[in-house]
Amino acid sequence: MSNKIYFTVGPTELYPVIKKFYNSAINRKIFSISHRSKEFSDIFQATVKNLKKLLSIPEDFYIFFFSSATECMERIIQNLVIDKSFHYINGFFAQRFYDISTKLNKSPEKIYSSYGEGTNFKNLILPERTELICIVLNETSTGVALNFDDIKKLKIKYPEILLSLDIVTAVPYYKIDYEYVDSAFFSVQKGFGMPPGLGVLILNEKCIKKAEILNKKGISIGSYNNFLNWKENFLKNQTTVTPNIPAIYILGKICEYLLENGYKKISEETDKKSELIYNYFNNHKFIKPFVQNKYYRSKTTIVLETKINSEKIVNILSNQGFVLSRGYSIYKEKHIRIGNFPMHTVEDTKNLIEKFKLIKLK
Amino acid sequence: MSNKIYFTVGPTELYPVIKKFYNSAINRKIFSISHRSKEFSDIFQATVKNLKKLLSIPEDFYIFFFSSATECMERIIQNLVIDKSFHYINGFFAQRFYDISTKLNKSPEKIYSSYGEGTNFKNLILPERTELICIVLNETSTGVALNFDDIKKLKIKYPEILLSLDIVTAVPYYKIDYEYVDSAFFSVQKGFGMPPGLGVLILNEKCIKKAEILNKKGISIGSYNNFLNWKENFLKNQTTVTPNIPAIYILGKICEYLLENGYKKISEETDKKSELIYNYFNNHKFIKPFVQNKYYRSKTTIVLETKINSEKIVNILSNQGFVLSRGYSIYKEKHIRIGNFPMHTVEDTKNLIEKFKLIKLK
Repeated sequence: MSNKIYFTVGPTELYPVIKKFYNSAINRKIFSISHRSKEFSDIFQATVKNLKKLLSIPEDFYIFFFSSATECMERIIQNLVIDKSFHYINGFFAQRFYDISTKLNKSPEKIYSSYGEGTNFKNLILPERTELICIVLNETSTGVALNFDDIKKLKIKYPEILLSLDIVTAVPYYKIDYEYVDSAFFSVQKGFGMPPGLGVLILNEKCIKKAEILNKKGISIGSYNNFLNWKENFLKNQTTVTPNIPAIYILGKICEYLLENGYKKISEETDKKSELIYNYFNNHKFIKPFVQNKYYRSKTTIVLETKINSEKIVNILSNQGFVLSRGYSIYKEKHIRIGNFPMHTVEDTKNLIEKFKLIKLK
Repeated sequence: MSNKIYFTVGPTELYPVIKKFYNSAINRKIFSISHRSKEFSDIFQATVKNLKKLLSIPEDFYIFFFSSATECMERIIQNLVIDKSFHYINGFFAQRFYDISTKLNKSPEKIYSSYGEGTNFKNLILPERTELICIVLNETSTGVALNFDDIKKLKIKYPEILLSLDIVTAVPYYKIDYEYVDSAFFSVQKGFGMPPGLGVLILNEKCIKKAEILNKKGISIGSYNNFLNWKENFLKNQTTVTPNIPAIYILGKICEYLLENGYKKISEETDKKSELIYNYFNNHKFIKPFVQNKYYRSKTTIVLETKINSEKIVNILSNQGFVLSRGYSIYKEKHIRIGNFPMHTVEDTKNLIEKFKLIKLK
């Protein structure tokens, strides 16, 4: 039995109800059913319905299930890009999206912001022949959250160019207006408090049409998981292959659970907890928020810069029952990252801050 | 609470210990750990070690984790085939492997056997420039199991050509000599009695070398899940992206559990149960084994041809607590398929046969 609380950026703490969902599913033998059965189609339909309701996804959008957010990136590039994707890069996950386009022999272009900074896209002029704009809404590696209204204005400026939004650590807290997004994706081990193993892609008919164009041109859009095969299965409330049934089932149950509690609670508590954390570290001696501009500070993944090696601090807190993430890649030793998701309570957040106060360095 | 027993070909009945494994993992917060942590590497290493021991996989083989057996097929074609794969097709899963090669813009070739039949490969002459031979050891769609010794002789005849073996419903019962196989793959919702969501690829260094050749030629071998990226992560006991941690953890525990009980028990019981089933249906009035030649009859997925619509029979048995699979694709109404995996007991198999005896048709 572990008494630790995972304040990590994902995988993170599970919702306590998850255990009940697993046991109930096993007792009802839900993990033994055929993915081509009526029983599974009912589960698929319930999950899609609850997810659309929770995230305000329009009725005519498709939901495809993949194995990770990274698979979503690969399938997006494969199906939506003949040649040129365009990437705004201000962290390692945006960079990964760009790298995938390169590895699939496309010709991506990019602009950078310094890591820890954001942009409002006001001065952005897209290169000629850009087919897809790729943006990460909330960069888990740096703690920068872009403002959705700025992204919306970019889409209004370029209505004909498809826009793909990485919303991995953003949802369910950050609201997205899907009128201005053609595809968006997340994985469930962040704000949905589930074990990892499922990537969820939300997309509109324009994406299907683009995949059809590639397919007709003889460009490979992948095999079993291409968008055309997925659409056909989605319309039957089915998946392309035997999927991660536990994850699809539990995602539906978690959405139902979050809907019962209401978005207002998620929103208010996330605001409150992030305020507690930022307020404390704004005045800390050797740990400061990494993102300088408050406009871009993420409320769900809080990245702190520490003058003491992060390993030391993370170990002290872990021994006291609070698990945090260290920095990403080159920031491993310099950063501490705190996940602020709906399953993290205000009480535990206060306790975490109290533990920080007690850290004594020799 | 369901009292039904799933004698389906997969997803199928779970091992009863699975529930304990989930609860223990949740209590220990294993599904919250980082996939880059020492804790996860230990789990990864234990699963690989137990799996290699159970399936007698040589020490120098790699184990890569994907999301399904179908993903394994796609990654194999992507990484091992410049132009020409060769497929022996005697069922729908072998056909799927071929179709994937086509969809990835390769130029696969094929030979067919009538569905329900097998081959010993004695007269097979491979086309010029074949790079990869693709064979399904146990065709879940038709109930045909090839003989591994026949595959071995084919490999001895063509030692330079890579051989990829679909062992999805074959393991852990059917033994494979990995000296004669370059890559093999399975999914866990069959003989491993787990919920679906994990594909396991077993491969040797020759496959890595081939992926290197493709990569150097500028042929896309996929992005995050290509074999070169996977090898690099495997050597650190890590995965390429945040994986299905529950599945990797539970696979290791199931292998440990099967090792404790010993392969002899799996082997003897599978033989006994398949004998009980085939013996009974050899003399049945309107249900007969689909595979005529006993040499090719699968012991793990038993396919029966019925003169009465399969729906009727499957429904009668389901109402009595025994869930069976109907036929695959065009055989949906004409076939019944019975899974015979290690978690199915001799006692339950006898009970299932007794229920068949009671079926009265008006």
